[in-house]
Amino acid sequence: MKLVLKGIIPPMITPLSDNGELDIEGLKRLIEHLISGGVHGIFLLGTNGEAPSLTYKLRKELITKACAYIAKRVPVLVGITDTSLEHSLEIAEHSKKAGADAVVIAPPYYFPISQNEMRDYLDGLVPHLPLPFLLYNMPGCTKLHLSIETVQYAKSLGAIGVKDSSGDLEYSHELIDVFKEDSDFAVIIGTEAFLSDTINYGGHGAIAGGANFYPKLFVDIYNASLKQDLPVITELNKKVKYIYDTIYSVGKYESRITKGTKCALSVMDICNDYMALPLRSFEDREREEIKRYIQKLNIK
Amino acid sequence: MKLVLKGIIPPMITPLSDNGELDIEGLKRLIEHLISGGVHGIFLLGTNGEAPSLTYKLRKELITKACAYIAKRVPVLVGITDTSLEHSLEIAEHSKKAGADAVVIAPPYYFPISQNEMRDYLDGLVPHLPLPFLLYNMPGCTKLHLSIETVQYAKSLGAIGVKDSSGDLEYSHELIDVFKEDSDFAVIIGTEAFLSDTINYGGHGAIAGGANFYPKLFVDIYNASLKQDLPVITELNKKVKYIYDTIYSVGKYESRITKGTKCALSVMDICNDYMALPLRSFEDREREEIKRYIQKLNIK
Amino acid sequence: MKLVLKGIIPPMITPLSDNGELDIEGLKRLIEHLISGGVHGIFLLGTNGEAPSLTYKLRKELITKACAYIAKRVPVLVGITDTSLEHSLEIAEHSKKAGADAVVIAPPYYFPISQNEMRDYLDGLVPHLPLPFLLYNMPGCTKLHLSIETVQYAKSLGAIGVKDSSGDLEYSHELIDVFKEDSDFAVIIGTEAFLSDTINYGGHGAIAGGANFYPKLFVDIYNASLKQDLPVITELNKKVKYIYDTIYSVGKYESRITKGTKCALSVMDICNDYMALPLRSFEDREREEIKRYIQKLNIK
Amino acid sequence: MKLVLKGIIPPMITPLSDNGELDIEGLKRLIEHLISGGVHGIFLLGTNGEAPSLTYKLRKELITKACAYIAKRVPVLVGITDTSLEHSLEIAEHSKKAGADAVVIAPPYYFPISQNEMRDYLDGLVPHLPLPFLLYNMPGCTKLHLSIETVQYAKSLGAIGVKDSSGDLEYSHELIDVFKEDSDFAVIIGTEAFLSDTINYGGHGAIAGGANFYPKLFVDIYNASLKQDLPVITELNKKVKYIYDTIYSVGKYESRITKGTKCALSVMDICNDYMALPLRSFEDREREEIKRYIQKLNIK
Repeated sequence: MKLVLKGIIPPMITPLSDNGELDIEGLKRLIEHLISGGVHGIFLLGTNGEAPSLTYKLRKELITKACAYIAKRVPVLVGITDTSLEHSLEIAEHSKKAGADAVVIAPPYYFPISQNEMRDYLDGLVPHLPLPFLLYNMPGCTKLHLSIETVQYAKSLGAIGVKDSSGDLEYSHELIDVFKEDSDFAVIIGTEAFLSDTINYGGHGAIAGGANFYPKLFVDIYNASLKQDLPVITELNKKVKYIYDTIYSVGKYESRITKGTKCALSVMDICNDYMALPLRSFEDREREEIKRYIQKLNIK
Repeated sequence: MKLVLKGIIPPMITPLSDNGELDIEGLKRLIEHLISGGVHGIFLLGTNGEAPSLTYKLRKELITKACAYIAKRVPVLVGITDTSLEHSLEIAEHSKKAGADAVVIAPPYYFPISQNEMRDYLDGLVPHLPLPFLLYNMPGCTKLHLSIETVQYAKSLGAIGVKDSSGDLEYSHELIDVFKEDSDFAVIIGTEAFLSDTINYGGHGAIAGGANFYPKLFVDIYNASLKQDLPVITELNKKVKYIYDTIYSVGKYESRITKGTKCALSVMDICNDYMALPLRSFEDREREEIKRYIQKLNIK
Repeated sequence: MKLVLKGIIPPMITPLSDNGELDIEGLKRLIEHLISGGVHGIFLLGTNGEAPSLTYKLRKELITKACAYIAKRVPVLVGITDTSLEHSLEIAEHSKKAGADAVVIAPPYYFPISQNEMRDYLDGLVPHLPLPFLLYNMPGCTKLHLSIETVQYAKSLGAIGVKDSSGDLEYSHELIDVFKEDSDFAVIIGTEAFLSDTINYGGHGAIAGGANFYPKLFVDIYNASLKQDLPVITELNKKVKYIYDTIYSVGKYESRITKGTKCALSVMDICNDYMALPLRSFEDREREEIKRYIQKLNIK
Repeated sequence: MKLVLKGIIPPMITPLSDNGELDIEGLKRLIEHLISGGVHGIFLLGTNGEAPSLTYKLRKELITKACAYIAKRVPVLVGITDTSLEHSLEIAEHSKKAGADAVVIAPPYYFPISQNEMRDYLDGLVPHLPLPFLLYNMPGCTKLHLSIETVQYAKSLGAIGVKDSSGDLEYSHELIDVFKEDSDFAVIIGTEAFLSDTINYGGHGAIAGGANFYPKLFVDIYNASLKQDLPVITELNKKVKYIYDTIYSVGKYESRITKGTKCALSVMDICNDYMALPLRSFEDREREEIKRYIQKLNIK
């Protein structure tokens, strides 16, 4: 039975204790929060999950525990992006054993590479993958904006979908146009402001960071978009805009979305907000700001 | 006794067998080639060394073996740049035990970070380093162009120098101006075309990729520059230009300098030119081209 | 009585004969085509109008004739953007005399200037303007992306609106948010793919290049957007997408939208498609392509 | 007799009175200052000359007067760059009548154009030019970085040289390499920090903005470079660096070099420093700063 991705799949943050270890109780609460919000899947160890900053030991522990707590209630995707192909496969193997459903792969992110080199890389990696894979376009971190041709090539190797976090609306429309006929190849957007537009245009869902703290909002937008209910969409999108203007706009950090998201979960008493270097949790003043915004959002 | 860096320090490529393991015999020959060419130090596991693409196991093996073969004849620097701070420290500890003299650190390269976040990162890392460290500016790969203030901050934490591979001549001049009074803080350039200019302007040396296959050329330019001998410099720089126009210009790969360098060593029968994905060795046609260029260079 | 801009305002191309003079008959036909398509205004001498490539003599002749033919049926806006402030005023004065309703001003486009320098420039220009003015954000040509603060400053000097052709959806949303309370300050979009989104979000209209050849399409989208009729909008936007994928995508020219637009009008027998250097009309092969696309569009 | 360009050719600023008219007495003094400093030519109406901000009337008056005062003592070049081809020709014709020796042409600077479109433009312009022409690469203002092929094409149409103000040292080296055999095709640099390097590498001279206020310095560097006298070059280049660090670094204006140059001439009592909008003269505080720097330079 083929895994078909759609709907709202939060890129789960990784709850960490102040000593840098896994925040186990936070992890359990976060998973329950997401599932009770109606999400359609959970994505571990993406950018929001701070994967590249974590040791392999911790990444494996997270995968094992999260899969156990989720217990097949929704599909689990695991990010295996790495600069070393062998270490990517190590995480993929571990994901398979832990019971995950798919892996997610972005380009190796140290060397600036070409589309051709990305294809060579996929040629070297994909045959050894023990699980279905989703391609992940994240040029802001990896420096490579995957061309449509590269996505098509990944599909020919077996990719079950693509997640686009380029923030380039025109590009995501092009992805949808190109893969429209392949109903089982998912085009998933990473930019939550584009969610309703994406569904209306024919896309499949969103890996929406904000669904970490407000899963229901994004699930509701997804459903209203399926119904082409513009007045409701317009109303709910005002909340998304509020999130962008407040929780995602504290400080001038490039990673302020991840920081704000983790801090929001902390002020909601869901999990701890320690971050692995080079990122750091918000200071008290910034934390108070997030607290006010979360209160105004009145999340239920 | 403080380590003072100067002169020509090749960023050594990592010789790999076709199965991806260390090419031990090639490693020995390469080290002898470098030392007999008169280099003033050797830098392991930098960008040319493909460090991020290698497993930790292989990186450690390389450090151990290279330190043993070099046997204190010249100082050894080891790149410990990583996205996980713990793994950086793991390599640093290993380098210390193997007998290396210093470590080299560039920004963690997944998240786009600010100068402030880089300082936080250094604050978290440097107190645990078991060896002196050199800061490494490599914006093309890490996305962060280290500000002069960040370099000054690293110096205040104990950095013994900075290597600049930004290719920005004005910036490297500014580095030299700022650190001119600190004769034991080394400003090392990564762009070999700027070597003579750098020395003339008051810099200390070059981590020159081309010194892998032609160490004597760069050592000679270094010496002529110390003597302000413009006619000789002009003559030798023509060879550097030739290298740029030929060996460094095969194909349109962003990493063509690393590829060309590794291939050059292979056609010179010094070591194997296997590359870890996402990079790949040159194809036969490109290899033939490199062969012709190396013959014309007539390296002795 | 204050001029309130809204709806569809085509940035009219300038019909030129093969000897570079004004194509008078084409101009008449084009104006009738636009007005019968239901447009809410006409904008002369913008980017699509090739203003900077034309002599002052020709620009003045166009203004005089177009105002006479339009004969107050819809408001007329005239682009006066220039690198010389005196020549901008010369065109503004002429526009006033010819009976135009407003002028449009983008930054002087030779020197790279700052937001502050743009304000100084407005301080020097605006008090001498004989007509209301609209600010024009066109960073692709002028190199300056007007900040929200600069737009606010222009408003404080009397601007009646802003046209944004940056193609940056987030920025245009921010403009709408900021000026939402000022119902008589128009936020006009230059990117036709954003038209329905802009109206839904609270914007006022579009200066849509495609309205040169297909005014009714954009007028219909504007009306459906006012009614929040998502199914109709979705259907009409497919035609806009078709235009982007075909008429706007011939060749790799940066100015392919302007070229395609002018060529479309020519194959529709509305006016001649001669272009002033540095642009050139399409060759026969490209022209045939445009012809096929226009036939498929089946414009009535 | 063919005009061969070489040496130091200041891009003369345009002296303006506070009412925006030509500062006639300042113009005379400036010309005498340049010629007594030993310059090898004078370039009117370039970027430093604020050409695009001036009316055609004023540009023509400047050409007439400057040519009369220079009176054939050195060659005169006139910038005719414009967005309208007809107006470029108008200035070229006027230059011929006034007795200028050559014209200088950069790409039309409103539309982003391709290399091919630049060639079309040259095809349309060059046959009508009444004087020899120099091509001018100024991507910071025109947005087009002229390819080597475009420069070669211009040469095939009769260009007598190229001025490169891209600030890209590698590119200027490539220009020199490519045109090395054509001793009568001049490669002239616009970046004064590169002057000695350019001459050493085989280039012909510099259109050096700083030669407006300190012509002798650049003439001396030019001569020392011809002699390959590295100690003298190194010493004189410290003064150039001082100019960059002081006079060229006041404020954060993109046009601070032009502003600083014009202000320097004013504090030296050579001419007035009024600037045409969008640029503005320095305020008192900035002017005082320039005054101190000029005093320290101790220009004789």
